Amino acid sequence: MGHSAMPGIRPNITSMTGYVPGEQPRDGEYIKLNTNENPYPPSPRVFEAIREALSGDRLRKYPEPLGDTFRTVAAKVFGVRPDQILIGNGSDDILTILTRAYVPEGGLIASLTPSYLLYKTLANIQGARFRTVPFTADWQLPDPWPIAHADLTFFASPNSPSGTFIESGAVSQLAEQTGCPIVLDEAYVDFAEKSGLPYAGSPNLILTRTLSKSYALAGIRFGFAIASPEVIRELVKVKDSYNCDVLSLTAATAAIQDRDYLAETRRKIIATRERLGDSLRRLGFDVTPSQANFVWARRSDRPVKTIYEALKARKILVRYMSYPEYGDGLRVTVGTDVEIDTLLKELTQILSV
Amino acid sequence: MGHSAMPGIRPNITSMTGYVPGEQPRDGEYIKLNTNENPYPPSPRVFEAIREALSGDRLRKYPEPLGDTFRTVAAKVFGVRPDQILIGNGSDDILTILTRAYVPEGGLIASLTPSYLLYKTLANIQGARFRTVPFTADWQLPDPWPIAHADLTFFASPNSPSGTFIESGAVSQLAEQTGCPIVLDEAYVDFAEKSGLPYAGSPNLILTRTLSKSYALAGIRFGFAIASPEVIRELVKVKDSYNCDVLSLTAATAAIQDRDYLAETRRKIIATRERLGDSLRRLGFDVTPSQANFVWARRSDRPVKTIYEALKARKILVRYMSYPEYGDGLRVTVGTDVEIDTLLKELTQILSV
Repeated sequence: MGHSAMPGIRPNITSMTGYVPGEQPRDGEYIKLNTNENPYPPSPRVFEAIREALSGDRLRKYPEPLGDTFRTVAAKVFGVRPDQILIGNGSDDILTILTRAYVPEGGLIASLTPSYLLYKTLANIQGARFRTVPFTADWQLPDPWPIAHADLTFFASPNSPSGTFIESGAVSQLAEQTGCPIVLDEAYVDFAEKSGLPYAGSPNLILTRTLSKSYALAGIRFGFAIASPEVIRELVKVKDSYNCDVLSLTAATAAIQDRDYLAETRRKIIATRERLGDSLRRLGFDVTPSQANFVWARRSDRPVKTIYEALKARKILVRYMSYPEYGDGLRVTVGTDVEIDTLLKELTQILSV
Repeated sequence: MGHSAMPGIRPNITSMTGYVPGEQPRDGEYIKLNTNENPYPPSPRVFEAIREALSGDRLRKYPEPLGDTFRTVAAKVFGVRPDQILIGNGSDDILTILTRAYVPEGGLIASLTPSYLLYKTLANIQGARFRTVPFTADWQLPDPWPIAHADLTFFASPNSPSGTFIESGAVSQLAEQTGCPIVLDEAYVDFAEKSGLPYAGSPNLILTRTLSKSYALAGIRFGFAIASPEVIRELVKVKDSYNCDVLSLTAATAAIQDRDYLAETRRKIIATRERLGDSLRRLGFDVTPSQANFVWARRSDRPVKTIYEALKARKILVRYMSYPEYGDGLRVTVGTDVEIDTLLKELTQILSV
């Protein structure tokens, strides 16, 4: 421990580059199709519930530590027990809690590639190793799965950036056969045809969800995990005592109860997603069939990074992503129909040059 | 990794008992003097700001990752640079981030005793060792400080449960001389006569603050750290990308600007604190002079645990605390004058039996 500018910070931290979230310009001039936010507002019930919470003395008091009101409601909605649910300050908080619970320093985190880049960041922060395996050509798990000895394995389904769905049965089977804890990160699952919910409760499988995407609540930071009661009991020890605030808990509880609103938002986004995919294909992009609220668009005839830059110059933000040994592409969030029309018009112009 | 009910969870987690926060009864019948919540509401500006934030589309969008709006305002209020501030989901989040940044598995966390029990929990979660040293008789640091090789040292000033203030100059000097990173946890500092702010920016010293107590915002979960820009840059890598939600950021930014409201709340609480301390002394308690929003009351003539239980039976919650090699006592939060009058009346009855 010396007298340098940063005495004592762990070398795994100083040597890493932090996770870089998508650009969040504050001037509001951009069409934002880069961070998979929902283009539609949250359920009106969310606003009602927050306004009601403001009228009492709930801001000055600590919130429910385990979020029991949310857990009771969510248990009914998802057909599990309340003690199978862990509340989180966004699903990133849940992924952090899982990493700290399962992965020792020097341990191993496994994942697929290309996928959510945060998994590697979590390994870096924990001082753990990180290994990834490429998806199969049809975006499923390689069989046999080659990293059966990991301390924790993250699978995103639907996956980002591809938008593809991993057969949950295969994941559940892998968790059962190897005894390895597997996180099925279902941030985008409300836009898919199926989910891993039928497999919830297996001792080695942890499902994670967020309200940022399908419930249009990225601003309030709320996610949750579904696992066996025995696993949840251990995870509770790792989370901060009051990791979710009273307004987020209130908003989340209201949001998950409005199933009609969710269904309607989902229907609109899926319709626009299909139109967006078809149009991008007509413009020469290679578009992976998506089960999420974004599409993954690549092309081999010209660099997509310059397309990203040209769009940005025209005040449209999409996400440029590049993966080692895989390549790059544009991840385009499904916006409103008007936003997507503008995107397609600008893209047509850019590509005609 | 076996096929038990909890395969793969780290032994430091399974073997620990989690931190137990103060009771949070939901029925509202209790006079709550157990978790150091503020008895007065937050500034009216907080409610205005939250209502205004609800009118736009801010819930559906991700919040500012670094909280730049808050940082700019807080920098002016506290006389530091914006890049010296780290935002947190409560100061517990900040303490967690610091632990992960500084303490390797098997490392050492040091603290004083009796103090905030969470420090030990953070060591347990990180798989680190934990050592404490008793305060001196006048609640200062022992000189010489005997654990100079710790990876991270936590000092709470004002301290809980004692409410006593540690001379910040001695802390700053210790950090400078040993090169050991020291966290000065100033959760209660707005109720004290001085603060560690004059020493902010030393590379080995990190100040932490919360809005839960003096700003009456325990429900919204917001805290922050003040340190050198070099340290903050590393801590940013460890925090979740969006660790503070848009409504909490909005509330916090409004709250810290209302200095008149803070001064008035502080004045009322300090006046009640002094009256509470004097009254408890007249009832035979040994009360440590407090610089926080609570008092620490002990007695040698009868067990205080039964007093805690008798108060609870009468719907008054105080915090019973017991520390190895030190003993126990009641930590009583400063409530409104009416609440304190009720407490004193019931205590008089209980003690007359």
